[in-house]
Amino acid sequence: MILARVIVTPKPVVNDPQGNTVKQGLATLGFREVSDVRVGKYIEVSLDVTSEHEARVRVEEMCRQLLANHVIEDFHFDIVRDGHR
Amino acid sequence: MILARVIVTPKPVVNDPQGNTVKQGLATLGFREVSDVRVGKYIEVSLDVTSEHEARVRVEEMCRQLLANHVIEDFHFDIVRDGHR
Repeated sequence: MILARVIVTPKPVVNDPQGNTVKQGLATLGFREVSDVRVGKYIEVSLDVTSEHEARVRVEEMCRQLLANHVIEDFHFDIVRDGHR
Repeated sequence: MILARVIVTPKPVVNDPQGNTVKQGLATLGFREVSDVRVGKYIEVSLDVTSEHEARVRVEEMCRQLLANHVIEDFHFDIVRDGHR
């Protein structure tokens, strides 16, 4: 069993209304030292494959096909063996 | 400038309908080696503070007050100096 930890973020040039809302919320709560907030997705994928290389190829393909919208989002991931975090 | 990278995940005992939907979507696309998917949030917070310790204390407080729902979510974060990733 292999665990992939995928992070999908809005591209730097793309507006992030969710991040702006969180920033405003934090300011309202008194966290005025916050200069910027960006909100993305974190996706843990457990795979029944034996090789780390195979996992890497497959997860890259998953990101391209479903997990990330390449027009407005970037993604990166790391692979953890045995499901340990 | 300090960057905090926060990851918020549904607690293991909590149902994750978003994760289930992504798992089904991946299966439909032919990724049948996927045994489980969990979906959480990834939040980058830029702070105008000078000390890493201060950033840590403040981000912990942000997570408790706004970023995570402690009833159903866990969170963890790391701190990166100078906004480098």
